[in-house]
Amino acid sequence: MTAPSPRLRIILGKAIAIGPGKAELLRLIEETGSISAAARKMGMSYRRAWTLVETMNTAFREPMVEAATGGRGGGGAQVTDFGREALDRYRAMEEKAVRSVTGEMDAFSEMLDPNYADPED
Amino acid sequence: MTAPSPRLRIILGKAIAIGPGKAELLRLIEETGSISAAARKMGMSYRRAWTLVETMNTAFREPMVEAATGGRGGGGAQVTDFGREALDRYRAMEEKAVRSVTGEMDAFSEMLDPNYADPED
Repeated sequence: MTAPSPRLRIILGKAIAIGPGKAELLRLIEETGSISAAARKMGMSYRRAWTLVETMNTAFREPMVEAATGGRGGGGAQVTDFGREALDRYRAMEEKAVRSVTGEMDAFSEMLDPNYADPED
Repeated sequence: MTAPSPRLRIILGKAIAIGPGKAELLRLIEETGSISAAARKMGMSYRRAWTLVETMNTAFREPMVEAATGGRGGGGAQVTDFGREALDRYRAMEEKAVRSVTGEMDAFSEMLDPNYADPED
């Protein structure tokens, strides 16, 4: 069983501007230089990953991901400097928020079922 | 446009034991004494609300919601004392986590598009 963990999502209107899934996608696009490779690593369709990227690019003031320049049409993508900054700041906020409730989370975990079997595992 | 707001979700394995949606559902079940009335207020199907309740009841050590006793078969439901405690503690953690990153959120908001039109609005 994975330990319960608090996560932080930042909601813009009803849409999620950035949350754990989009942050991980950004990290993998940076790592792989490709939306499709990042999607594969997350077990997600290319279409779904592309939709998440579009949401981020629309919700933020500047693009977070853009087509890699100088490629040979292989569909490469890169996280922009703006996207990298947003990701870093999101991670810092998430860590700070989680740290702020560490004691409460330990106590709260006692309310969760220790024998809970994740239906998706 | 709704202001961006950080939310806290508590993940157990890959499932969400409790998050903003489930917390709101619990509050509405408490308010209305009915899963179907709570679902209606959230614009959610009864089936979906019931699935969320089942997930909570499974993920936690004790039931969070149970059939109301003494009813006349009208499908009433009530939040248990255990569920109320979990909800209160979740809310307290959420508030504390959000408060811990207020300054960072204000700065982060500057990175979001002020003209963003929520596609779901």
